[in-house]
Amino acid sequence: MKILVIGGTGTIGQAVVHELSQRHTIITAGREHGDVRLDMTNKSSIEAMYKSVGKFDALIVTAGQVHFAPLTDMTDELYEIGLKNKLMGQVNLVLIGMKYINDGGSFTLTSGILSQEPLRLASSAAMVNGAVDSFVKTAAVEMPRGIRINVVSPTILAESVQKYGDAFQGFLPVPAAHVALAYSKSVEGAQTGQIYRVGYTS
Amino acid sequence: MKILVIGGTGTIGQAVVHELSQRHTIITAGREHGDVRLDMTNKSSIEAMYKSVGKFDALIVTAGQVHFAPLTDMTDELYEIGLKNKLMGQVNLVLIGMKYINDGGSFTLTSGILSQEPLRLASSAAMVNGAVDSFVKTAAVEMPRGIRINVVSPTILAESVQKYGDAFQGFLPVPAAHVALAYSKSVEGAQTGQIYRVGYTS
Repeated sequence: MKILVIGGTGTIGQAVVHELSQRHTIITAGREHGDVRLDMTNKSSIEAMYKSVGKFDALIVTAGQVHFAPLTDMTDELYEIGLKNKLMGQVNLVLIGMKYINDGGSFTLTSGILSQEPLRLASSAAMVNGAVDSFVKTAAVEMPRGIRINVVSPTILAESVQKYGDAFQGFLPVPAAHVALAYSKSVEGAQTGQIYRVGYTS
Repeated sequence: MKILVIGGTGTIGQAVVHELSQRHTIITAGREHGDVRLDMTNKSSIEAMYKSVGKFDALIVTAGQVHFAPLTDMTDELYEIGLKNKLMGQVNLVLIGMKYINDGGSFTLTSGILSQEPLRLASSAAMVNGAVDSFVKTAAVEMPRGIRINVVSPTILAESVQKYGDAFQGFLPVPAAHVALAYSKSVEGAQTGQIYRVGYTS
């Protein structure tokens, strides 16, 4: 398969590339790194990426920003960061990608545990992850040409504990290599409309 | 209690007003009807409404639009309708309302079953409802001054079957008066961070 990985140089992205490159052709895209440059908040940039890549079998998105701040400091401009980036960035990659993806291809997006487990400072992450999960579940029933769509919702990564672990006390971290298996299941399996919750322990 | 109901003249809003006006003072606000005029997509209009209403004990929102269309016809401009209206309209009502609400007050928002049950044409409704649910769950842990926040997520209303029933075959409709009880539970009870799923039968 020809698989396009957005954010292929991040922690999850690297693990996904490591897992899938053993069996498939991988093309990575990102803002500053990767085979192709992409600003996922910009529809022209998305369109240009697909034009340069051509037909493909699977899109995996492991990129997308949200803003973390106390609820009382949040404004709609700060929520807009996550809505434009991690939510509509991923959604636009799907909407535009539908013109380029092969019959029976798959889209695999990324959300995260914060839609399910409330943490301080994380109201934007919760909002965006919840939106991505429900979008995927519903988009799946309308995908044409046997195209599938799933989302991976990981808990905190073992690799991120040093940076973010203080906010995630009591969460069992999961290695990125385990999270990568969920992307493999999505791309190489037959399921659609699934939310793969990886490392949820309680 | 002094309770502000946004969308108090809609099907759910009327049932909520009927239920709560037996015990409380109700002020309604809406685009075209109600005691106060409000455009919930406009922060100045929200601020003006709160200034005219003054201190209050509970905000209930039963308003908010999304766009319904086949996934393949959806664009980010069409998703933007729901994001600006039902999502950020409700979120801005909370963020700005926190300056005006009394200690121990409550916010009660509205989402809907489409975040959980995929239906054709409903990818924007799914996205927005999922976002509202997860926002509420997480915002609850950061609310100051004993303020609570919950969301009511109803299935299709008995009153709406004639208009929307064709899309909801197999769903058991619930009377708006039953949905109104969830708003009563949120406002008059002690819970916070809850998603009240009303009429989910399978």
